[in-house]
Amino acid sequence: MIPNWLLKRAALTPHAPALSFQDRTWSYLELKEEALDRAGKLRSLGIGRGSRIALLGGTSGEMALLIHGCLLAGIEMVMLNSRLTAEEIEYQLKDSQSEWLVCEDAVRRKTLQHVCRSIVYDELVQLNREPLQLEQMWEEDRTLTIMYTSGTTGFPKGVRQTAENHTSSALSAVLNSGLHDGDAWLHMMPLFHISGFSILARAVLYGSEVRLFEKFDAAIAAEEITTGRVSGMSVVAVTLERLLTVIENGKLSVHPKFRTMLAGGGPVPVSYLKRAEQCGLPVLQTYGMTETSSQTATLSAVDALRKPGSAGKPLFFTDIRIDGQTEPFVKGEILIKGPHVTTGYIGKHTSTQVLRNGWLHSGDIGYFDDEGFLFVSDRRSDLIISGGENIYPAEIEAVLAEHPQIVEAGVCAMQSDTWGAVPAAFVVARSAIEEESLRKFCQTRLAAYKVPKAFHFVDELPRNASNKLLRKDLRESLTSRK
Amino acid sequence: MIPNWLLKRAALTPHAPALSFQDRTWSYLELKEEALDRAGKLRSLGIGRGSRIALLGGTSGEMALLIHGCLLAGIEMVMLNSRLTAEEIEYQLKDSQSEWLVCEDAVRRKTLQHVCRSIVYDELVQLNREPLQLEQMWEEDRTLTIMYTSGTTGFPKGVRQTAENHTSSALSAVLNSGLHDGDAWLHMMPLFHISGFSILARAVLYGSEVRLFEKFDAAIAAEEITTGRVSGMSVVAVTLERLLTVIENGKLSVHPKFRTMLAGGGPVPVSYLKRAEQCGLPVLQTYGMTETSSQTATLSAVDALRKPGSAGKPLFFTDIRIDGQTEPFVKGEILIKGPHVTTGYIGKHTSTQVLRNGWLHSGDIGYFDDEGFLFVSDRRSDLIISGGENIYPAEIEAVLAEHPQIVEAGVCAMQSDTWGAVPAAFVVARSAIEEESLRKFCQTRLAAYKVPKAFHFVDELPRNASNKLLRKDLRESLTSRK
Repeated sequence: MIPNWLLKRAALTPHAPALSFQDRTWSYLELKEEALDRAGKLRSLGIGRGSRIALLGGTSGEMALLIHGCLLAGIEMVMLNSRLTAEEIEYQLKDSQSEWLVCEDAVRRKTLQHVCRSIVYDELVQLNREPLQLEQMWEEDRTLTIMYTSGTTGFPKGVRQTAENHTSSALSAVLNSGLHDGDAWLHMMPLFHISGFSILARAVLYGSEVRLFEKFDAAIAAEEITTGRVSGMSVVAVTLERLLTVIENGKLSVHPKFRTMLAGGGPVPVSYLKRAEQCGLPVLQTYGMTETSSQTATLSAVDALRKPGSAGKPLFFTDIRIDGQTEPFVKGEILIKGPHVTTGYIGKHTSTQVLRNGWLHSGDIGYFDDEGFLFVSDRRSDLIISGGENIYPAEIEAVLAEHPQIVEAGVCAMQSDTWGAVPAAFVVARSAIEEESLRKFCQTRLAAYKVPKAFHFVDELPRNASNKLLRKDLRESLTSRK
Repeated sequence: MIPNWLLKRAALTPHAPALSFQDRTWSYLELKEEALDRAGKLRSLGIGRGSRIALLGGTSGEMALLIHGCLLAGIEMVMLNSRLTAEEIEYQLKDSQSEWLVCEDAVRRKTLQHVCRSIVYDELVQLNREPLQLEQMWEEDRTLTIMYTSGTTGFPKGVRQTAENHTSSALSAVLNSGLHDGDAWLHMMPLFHISGFSILARAVLYGSEVRLFEKFDAAIAAEEITTGRVSGMSVVAVTLERLLTVIENGKLSVHPKFRTMLAGGGPVPVSYLKRAEQCGLPVLQTYGMTETSSQTATLSAVDALRKPGSAGKPLFFTDIRIDGQTEPFVKGEILIKGPHVTTGYIGKHTSTQVLRNGWLHSGDIGYFDDEGFLFVSDRRSDLIISGGENIYPAEIEAVLAEHPQIVEAGVCAMQSDTWGAVPAAFVVARSAIEEESLRKFCQTRLAAYKVPKAFHFVDELPRNASNKLLRKDLRESLTSRK
């Protein structure tokens, strides 16, 4: 059994700061009161323990309160990505058999009102509260959240994340990242992704603070980090790069209280890590996914500079293997085991086996070095097979990112009659670069078959709400360019 | 499943300091090597996974290595209190059906060699290692340790402590006490008590260091605390007082790195807490017992000065109730629930029900204040806590009753400035007995700390209508005798 997170936390440290958003702040006691309020109002709609509802909105204080209200009352949440089209959302609402949709935006709601019952935030908060019977303890296997992952092909899969999944993930993380009095996490991620939700989960378990912002803002982030308001933050490579630029240009100093820059959602180019080191910013790369309720492997601060590019070691309660490999440096599919791994999918994919012999097959490719550090070479869906040679786009992107005139780069497969596929590069440049010089730059750093066969100069790269690079979109834009 | 602690820890942070004793230090990798060595040598005696052996010795580096060796190899350990007499140990060896006794002292071993197979440390380390097959993961319910607590009946009970008990206890503790890089715990406790064993358990889970000493030494402790070598320490009231005296007399300053003085084993006088505050020593009172694998409630640093005398709030994964009471400030029996509570006793007491309706009935009396802070007002009416050791009157009474000249005996606590309490005996004799001969009689049958410090010869013992001995009345008559 696991204690009802917020009930227990509010009993332990009622007056500790829990959450801030814009000009509002909540202690854990106040957060519990707000969560009780939202849960009581949902109750008046007939939504309560065991109900399954969908949440649709951006990152906001209200969204965070709603999430805590649902957790407190035992309501399962389908976390909808607010960037999806109406069609994509309709699929997820139906697949998850959501009883209600609670929606930020009235216009958005209108386009979806034929799918299931729905209400917007503003209406919800006007309702009268109904009394609640709260559970003090949760069964380990109870569902807290459902998040959809777009598979490489076919229909998105609804991943069930249990109380044990989220709790053990947070406990593994604390044994890696430590816990200090006054810890606060800068939250500029979507709440509907595991990266953003897990920040809320960890904070309530740890009794630390979440400083929530609507979206990533490099200037604000730099200020929070350099003034000692926060001790940790979650980023992806592109947001890290923007933040570094602000810190570098402003010649700012990272506050000593800040000790964890958690970088997920794909590999971070080594050039960024070196710049971060120059700035005194401790970047810890992490590897995880929706199916593992956030972090599975994370670099520890002590190894951050010694092992650039590594996702660290499997966290305390997690286990990782390379399929069929025991030798260091040999690549293969990354297999994952532990109490943080989902017990299964819902809806259409209910019968899809998540585990094979107890292991989650991630589809990602990686290897361990001779000291047991995991390196994730690529997400398998992006693998480019060229004339029998395996090419991992991330490797090429990292090389391009080292070019002084390049801000960032994305690489994908381009069809080739001769080789099956070859890599093509999309480049965001600071100033004009000759394609030929870029090719030469690569040729000195990469085997010939890995050098992009085409370079496209673009203003920005396609990214999802978590700022994860969408190589699939790159491939599609290649097709349309023909 | 729980990872094999030391295997996982040594994989995560091989070079972090793990243990020091006298002039020796071990990193986690070295600790694993030593543990493998001891496990391999035990293997050569036929001791391996699922074996149950007893360990008998004082606090030493070798004892710590042996403990880690047994944990690593899946050997259940019966932790014998080295202060017990041969007779007391014999009972525990037989009751636990220990296959082997591993013993520090050759003389001690000789007195016990008729009970079970045995070996002394010095012989063990001379053996050849045999190869091992290690388990990467442990079942939650596997027994790691067995510790005997003297029961009210006079027959000590062997408490089974599982992997989940110890692990969840450590996880609850980290959410209360935090975790910093470079944390080190000053260990001057018996390793065979839960207070001392749990320090080893927490360290290996957290990746922090244990600085181990043979016994409590106020001068050394003061030096460790004031020079920043350690961040935490476990004490009982009597050792805290001695340490305070050294700090006060030397006008020493507590190093800012030091943040947790964990005070257990019975209540700490408020006068000590005030002196600690003057010294800048953050004392966190804690409440726990063998059956709860250490801490159940612990004061947090932030509340230490505001709630003197309180044992704090029930830790994150634990639950506490006052039997039949919901109002604050009303006293009753303390009931405990959570994954840290033992699943049962072994041997003679196997069939003794530990839980009633899911709750451990501690026998201790306490109350919650209006903010949810636990105050333990009284240990089991008959329990004598002497310098952190639990003494059960029934056990001493049973020994006295064996004396040919004694009709019956009653034992109760007598106040002691040094030890908190010591046992005093009331004896109904058939004929005159010399007090000295009675003392000697006890010394051969009871650990020194259990031998009554005063003998009173009386005509009869106070009993209620059911002839139940009224130890409360004994205590009162002690007061009036002064």
